[in-house]
Amino acid sequence: MNAQAKPLVLHEDRLFPSDPTQRTIARRLYAHVARLPIVSPHGHTDPAWFAGNEAFANATELLLVPDHYVFRMLYSQGVPLDALGIPRADGSRAQVDPRAAWQVFARNVHLFRGTPSSMWLDHVFHEVFGLRQRLDAGTADTYYDTITQALQTPGFRPRALFERFGIEVIATTEGPLDDLAHHAAIRDSGWKGKVVTAYRPDPVVDPEHEQFTGALRRFGEITGEDVYDWDGYLRAHRQRRAFFKSMGATSTDHGHPSCATADLPPAQARALFAKIVSGAFDAADAELFRAQVLTEMAGMSLDDGLVMQIHPGCFRNHNRGLFERYGRDKGADIPLRTEYVRALKPLLDRYGNEPTFRLILFTLDESTYARELGPLAGHWPCLFLGPAWWFHDSPEGMWRFREQTLSTAGFYNTVGFNDDTRAFLSIPARHDVARRIDCAVLARLAAEHRIDEDEAAEVAADLAYRLPKEAYRL
Amino acid sequence: MNAQAKPLVLHEDRLFPSDPTQRTIARRLYAHVARLPIVSPHGHTDPAWFAGNEAFANATELLLVPDHYVFRMLYSQGVPLDALGIPRADGSRAQVDPRAAWQVFARNVHLFRGTPSSMWLDHVFHEVFGLRQRLDAGTADTYYDTITQALQTPGFRPRALFERFGIEVIATTEGPLDDLAHHAAIRDSGWKGKVVTAYRPDPVVDPEHEQFTGALRRFGEITGEDVYDWDGYLRAHRQRRAFFKSMGATSTDHGHPSCATADLPPAQARALFAKIVSGAFDAADAELFRAQVLTEMAGMSLDDGLVMQIHPGCFRNHNRGLFERYGRDKGADIPLRTEYVRALKPLLDRYGNEPTFRLILFTLDESTYARELGPLAGHWPCLFLGPAWWFHDSPEGMWRFREQTLSTAGFYNTVGFNDDTRAFLSIPARHDVARRIDCAVLARLAAEHRIDEDEAAEVAADLAYRLPKEAYRL
Amino acid sequence: MNAQAKPLVLHEDRLFPSDPTQRTIARRLYAHVARLPIVSPHGHTDPAWFAGNEAFANATELLLVPDHYVFRMLYSQGVPLDALGIPRADGSRAQVDPRAAWQVFARNVHLFRGTPSSMWLDHVFHEVFGLRQRLDAGTADTYYDTITQALQTPGFRPRALFERFGIEVIATTEGPLDDLAHHAAIRDSGWKGKVVTAYRPDPVVDPEHEQFTGALRRFGEITGEDVYDWDGYLRAHRQRRAFFKSMGATSTDHGHPSCATADLPPAQARALFAKIVSGAFDAADAELFRAQVLTEMAGMSLDDGLVMQIHPGCFRNHNRGLFERYGRDKGADIPLRTEYVRALKPLLDRYGNEPTFRLILFTLDESTYARELGPLAGHWPCLFLGPAWWFHDSPEGMWRFREQTLSTAGFYNTVGFNDDTRAFLSIPARHDVARRIDCAVLARLAAEHRIDEDEAAEVAADLAYRLPKEAYRL
Repeated sequence: MNAQAKPLVLHEDRLFPSDPTQRTIARRLYAHVARLPIVSPHGHTDPAWFAGNEAFANATELLLVPDHYVFRMLYSQGVPLDALGIPRADGSRAQVDPRAAWQVFARNVHLFRGTPSSMWLDHVFHEVFGLRQRLDAGTADTYYDTITQALQTPGFRPRALFERFGIEVIATTEGPLDDLAHHAAIRDSGWKGKVVTAYRPDPVVDPEHEQFTGALRRFGEITGEDVYDWDGYLRAHRQRRAFFKSMGATSTDHGHPSCATADLPPAQARALFAKIVSGAFDAADAELFRAQVLTEMAGMSLDDGLVMQIHPGCFRNHNRGLFERYGRDKGADIPLRTEYVRALKPLLDRYGNEPTFRLILFTLDESTYARELGPLAGHWPCLFLGPAWWFHDSPEGMWRFREQTLSTAGFYNTVGFNDDTRAFLSIPARHDVARRIDCAVLARLAAEHRIDEDEAAEVAADLAYRLPKEAYRL
Repeated sequence: MNAQAKPLVLHEDRLFPSDPTQRTIARRLYAHVARLPIVSPHGHTDPAWFAGNEAFANATELLLVPDHYVFRMLYSQGVPLDALGIPRADGSRAQVDPRAAWQVFARNVHLFRGTPSSMWLDHVFHEVFGLRQRLDAGTADTYYDTITQALQTPGFRPRALFERFGIEVIATTEGPLDDLAHHAAIRDSGWKGKVVTAYRPDPVVDPEHEQFTGALRRFGEITGEDVYDWDGYLRAHRQRRAFFKSMGATSTDHGHPSCATADLPPAQARALFAKIVSGAFDAADAELFRAQVLTEMAGMSLDDGLVMQIHPGCFRNHNRGLFERYGRDKGADIPLRTEYVRALKPLLDRYGNEPTFRLILFTLDESTYARELGPLAGHWPCLFLGPAWWFHDSPEGMWRFREQTLSTAGFYNTVGFNDDTRAFLSIPARHDVARRIDCAVLARLAAEHRIDEDEAAEVAADLAYRLPKEAYRL
Repeated sequence: MNAQAKPLVLHEDRLFPSDPTQRTIARRLYAHVARLPIVSPHGHTDPAWFAGNEAFANATELLLVPDHYVFRMLYSQGVPLDALGIPRADGSRAQVDPRAAWQVFARNVHLFRGTPSSMWLDHVFHEVFGLRQRLDAGTADTYYDTITQALQTPGFRPRALFERFGIEVIATTEGPLDDLAHHAAIRDSGWKGKVVTAYRPDPVVDPEHEQFTGALRRFGEITGEDVYDWDGYLRAHRQRRAFFKSMGATSTDHGHPSCATADLPPAQARALFAKIVSGAFDAADAELFRAQVLTEMAGMSLDDGLVMQIHPGCFRNHNRGLFERYGRDKGADIPLRTEYVRALKPLLDRYGNEPTFRLILFTLDESTYARELGPLAGHWPCLFLGPAWWFHDSPEGMWRFREQTLSTAGFYNTVGFNDDTRAFLSIPARHDVARRIDCAVLARLAAEHRIDEDEAAEVAADLAYRLPKEAYRL
């Protein structure tokens, strides 16, 4: 015990409005959904964890190093990435004692006040590790030791946590070249945990991806198709989609700079592809190619039933110096203004009225919620809205999502929650936040007599459990 | 009575904040405005209803078929328009029993939870038809029969409802070719209800409108002007505006894809018009032509005193397949990002400081409220802001409108409420929602000691009654 | 006493949420910060006031004529600027009795209901002048006399008010040609008040500024540098920055139409400058030149330690007729959509990871808070967010700023409050509003159990006092 330390409390009413009328209703609604199984249809956990079921190394490796939400904030206040032992692009790492890195984090934990990271971390500390004092410089060592020791025990292995968390199904995301060996190992192990993959073909779809040339070559080797020919390229996709589907995939995912789609006549598509594979293309060609492939993917979804997801609108690797030294995914991705109405029209005019087609849209540009995405989802039968995403996966962001899409898309053109995380331990915390916010939103509607409480309870359960399962065909 | 059915309650405090301090103030403010007459300065009811005063046919024809808010949501979840008997572009309709269509709606009524349609419909069910059980699959037939039978009685004829609703004046919207025969019939009938028209010249202003060529020819026939000559074209507008004004019009309305205006030298305007009527124009020409006509219309407003409205920023008929089969106005219109600052400058530099000119601006792009529209209306003497429009005509949308325009435009550069609807029965519900939200906004300001309650009461009455009358010169 | 007049009350709980739980916490938090000294790191008060310490003339000259927040609203409702005696571009003024101008204002004071101007003015009336009846037509003369008489007394001289307001330090803003004589006079006077300048070089940076040619010539004369040569021009800036720094400046400020930056190779920069000084440049050249100078300024900040501020995104002088008659800064400036992600990349790639560089960003486009500014500030070590600015400097605007930046930038990548005003008497009111809103935001977080109250109290004090001092190196 540290006498100076403040208590760490996870209040049972957290995130509920403090107005007594709303809070009372929110509590009742939450009681219906708090213990529903977790359905996690989109995320980035590592299937190797569940295949190998090895212990996590220590607090720093588990909670800091993989979490760019955390280290980007520290970096923004002058903490060098090397002080945290973040791996560099060349695979090397600064020689940092993981305990010292944890202490750096603990000394700066005030930076996270009011942020979702703070909420998720406190939930993990309190619920997973049983900590009851707030993290700060004085409790840093206690934290580090408690967490690191727990991780060596059987109850903290990945599969045990998966079961403890009440996860009914989780989807990971793999590239088109992945052999899905970990998924095979999970399936063959006899373990009952349901871990499925999702098809994310960006490296062979985006000509401006630094791995495109190599990935395309490997795409041909794996599939045995002539992937330098447009038809062969499309057949290779169909083949990999079928393989992913055989390993449990029910969805594809596409992370493009914009939401542009195209529906070129076949001869033009063929000519464009020839230009792309020749390497003699410009930025407009690359954009048009990505746009055309999205429409091709929609067509394949009609055939194989995989649900399509588009995650557009991010400027990747905005910090050139950092990218050169540390590589991708280091907290330097920044949202961009994103247009949907004109961008999606080619794809929608081609496939948008097909009864079996399903396209889930995400955004990093909240100005499109009320203006574009809500009205689109409230008309087109294929369209559904993914939840508040990434930078907007916060209590405030979730409120804005509901307040700005409800009147035009309703609740039933949305798909419940995605945690979209690689921070495995935070998954229960993130789903709990989403359920609490949806209950708070519904409690307000009920308190203002816009919905009856029995309807609100049904919506709460639909958002927490039924809609994600149905939307993703899980 | 259906024993399974849930009660339908229209709570007296609906839409008021649940915080007791705010709710108490909101109730007091609302008591001042709840029974003020309805002034409806902009909308799309059919003047034939009030001219002919025929009974509405049945629940489906009255409440579903004309309401694209309703059938777009059903369509978004896979209900074919033919299942509801929505008329097709060729005038045909699927053979659908209107009772069966009503049952489809009732089975899907959960889709509307939390939406404004749900609020409006419940208000109509409860207040107009006296229903006291919630609509669902089990009560669908009771609803259909109750409503359809009521419609055959004298108290549910259009004029009786108009009087029962407390409508002091309502404006309809007609195209430039309309002979306003229904308005003449109303005037000549001796009935006291005040129904005025508004001049909406889009079909002869937008060269990209599919009816443009035919409409322009007819424009010439009706007016006797040479409408293929720029001066004759402008004279034809002046003539029709005068005719509309003689039939009660106090405003014009302009529904353009953008808010672009232009102030070309006469020779350029003339040359542009020649290009337009030749048919050999491109999209930029069409945009510039619409822009120029807006400025011409502003000039005419200076002369005839008609208040000008611009409703910009909609991508019409976004679903090509649906448009080809069912035509316009089928719930496939989607908002676009809209720019006002540069767009309006030509018109404003020409006429913006004229004391008698009045221009009411609307938007479907809420990101412009705080950034562009509030600051513009808080400076230019001619500019006023129309209320939260169409996709934003919801409690949340109205709150955002006030919260994002109040600090720069105040309350007095806004014009109160427009229902903008063709759903006649929903008019009292819509005005009631607007009054309740304005009272809620004011109650919050008073509860946070930013405005005294006597001032709030005056503002509430101004927004509900005085400002729309003054702004529209009604 | 005016028997008809309403009491003017400055409620101790104003701006706090009315929910009792939140209000109680907000009160406690506010008690910690209410009496902290005022740090005003960015604003536009006139240093002549503090140098000369002359009495202000009367109520109208003090409170109406310099406040474009006030007269733009009056103008928007048809009050001519001449009726208020606003100076014209040629230096003349309409012959208006200042008391009559005050009466015009008083008759229209309802226009300000719910606006920040109303709050600031009431604070000044109540706290500075001891008025206890609301301003309206009936109390106009009492107001005018009370204020005007008070201004003639020693306690209302600028220095006395500065001390009474508890201002620890205030920054003014001067152009590059200013000799800072008033600052020298203040320094030499022996008065203890701390008034520093800030370097705002726009007139010699913006080739489209109407004073550019003359200002550049004078820039050369003052510095003795050849400012028509790129290297000489840069040396002149360095020299003036050093002079400003010697007079207390700790920051520079840049008010550009966009946030564009550039990092041209030296030869290209030189060639661009030659084109600019030749006068034979177009709008794109001007934009690129401003962009390049921002990056040069960042480089100079690395050397001299001045904190850099960018205030972008305003369309200046939107009303051509008004500009021709009355000149700049007459309430006709309108925000523009503004892009930051691509715009800032050249500057950031060059200097963004430098530990000593600090860049404070402002916006008039709130759609960038959550999408661009929060994520940028939550990554780049040099970046901090300035507070809700100008049109957004309202309770609602401050709430939106916090709600939309908190989750990605936290509190500690923001810099507390700037009053940014030339309305000297409103400074305590503006800081009080900011402190109250920050306490309200924090109270809500605490009431919803997202932050502990001891943390909230620390954040409140940091935002009110510590962060502005540290961010601006004051």
